[in-house]
Amino acid sequence: MPEAVPLGLDEYLAGGIRPRIIDAAAALFRQRGFNAVSMIEAGQAVGLSKPGLYHHWPNKEALLLSIVGITGALLLRQLEDVKAATADPEQRMRLFMRGRIAVVARHQDLFTVTWQERAILGSGSYSRLAATAERYRDSVRSLIDDAKEAGLIRPEVDTHLLMLAIDGMTGCAYFWYREQGALRPAEIGDAFRDMLLGGVADPGLPGPDIAAN
Amino acid sequence: MPEAVPLGLDEYLAGGIRPRIIDAAAALFRQRGFNAVSMIEAGQAVGLSKPGLYHHWPNKEALLLSIVGITGALLLRQLEDVKAATADPEQRMRLFMRGRIAVVARHQDLFTVTWQERAILGSGSYSRLAATAERYRDSVRSLIDDAKEAGLIRPEVDTHLLMLAIDGMTGCAYFWYREQGALRPAEIGDAFRDMLLGGVADPGLPGPDIAAN
Repeated sequence: MPEAVPLGLDEYLAGGIRPRIIDAAAALFRQRGFNAVSMIEAGQAVGLSKPGLYHHWPNKEALLLSIVGITGALLLRQLEDVKAATADPEQRMRLFMRGRIAVVARHQDLFTVTWQERAILGSGSYSRLAATAERYRDSVRSLIDDAKEAGLIRPEVDTHLLMLAIDGMTGCAYFWYREQGALRPAEIGDAFRDMLLGGVADPGLPGPDIAAN
Repeated sequence: MPEAVPLGLDEYLAGGIRPRIIDAAAALFRQRGFNAVSMIEAGQAVGLSKPGLYHHWPNKEALLLSIVGITGALLLRQLEDVKAATADPEQRMRLFMRGRIAVVARHQDLFTVTWQERAILGSGSYSRLAATAERYRDSVRSLIDDAKEAGLIRPEVDTHLLMLAIDGMTGCAYFWYREQGALRPAEIGDAFRDMLLGGVADPGLPGPDIAAN
């Protein structure tokens, strides 16, 4: 039986049989839950026999480990791409929120499986994945801190809580996003960004009351 | 074998052996995943033998069904209590966001299990639970629409997207909330509300740019 080789992001994005197995398995895990799907079914979904599938993955946990690893890497890559694309904090915030929803929507099976099933992974693999997640959160916090320094975001806003707010409002798209819906991910991202930056309160109201109550 | 009798919210809040089983099972399901926990272990956690547990619940799915039912009912009750407590839209928004995080934090095992494992439930029970969830979302949307009519929230804000934003940023507390953390649920709720109502943008910036970009 071969070693469990987790699928890297570049290999996933390049396409081929291993990425196809990942996508098919994620779709099945999402529909029926990780435990209800057998390796044989995961193989059948891409036309592979049992030995054919085992040639690529030694067990179901290795598939799950790759799925969770890929979603973590997708989010990190999206954020790094935004930071590389522009140094303007306002542009960065816009591209980040748009792109984050777009990534979750585009890989909805992978993210649903990751966020619903990751607890199944043993503590060994989990701690490595948690390190990636912490690196991502650090990078989001630094994006926010840069925006504070540039005068885009008020200095008294709690960086960590704003990170959690953005993370939650955009991440939950894994659950409610529908391709047939009226709005594209970029439009939803822009709407969320407008809400969070400009606020939803009617400016006709006395400002201080909003913060003081 | 007795019928599966889902636990109602009032029975859960009243305490007793059935609520204690629910809490213990939810803690185990959260730690190790629904599929990895046996009915015998769920019974042992509250000092019940196998027949003793089966006297209260016929199977593990009935436990999960009760857990998911209770979290839905907890959220609905919290929202209804807010609406009954005050008609002032600003107070309502504050109490709603505070209380929503508090409920999720207080029953973190139940919410984690609900949001990670609900897909396991068959489509029959799931559709009934989905109806409760839709009633809840309708009620949140009406809270937002009332706030618009009262002039608290700008009329052009998309009610549905604002509902999703609040839902996501507060709901994700199931994952990141820690009792040992620096902030209490009410403080986090107030911070999120301030961000969303007043916006995080520095008012020194030209306003129209924020919305137009």
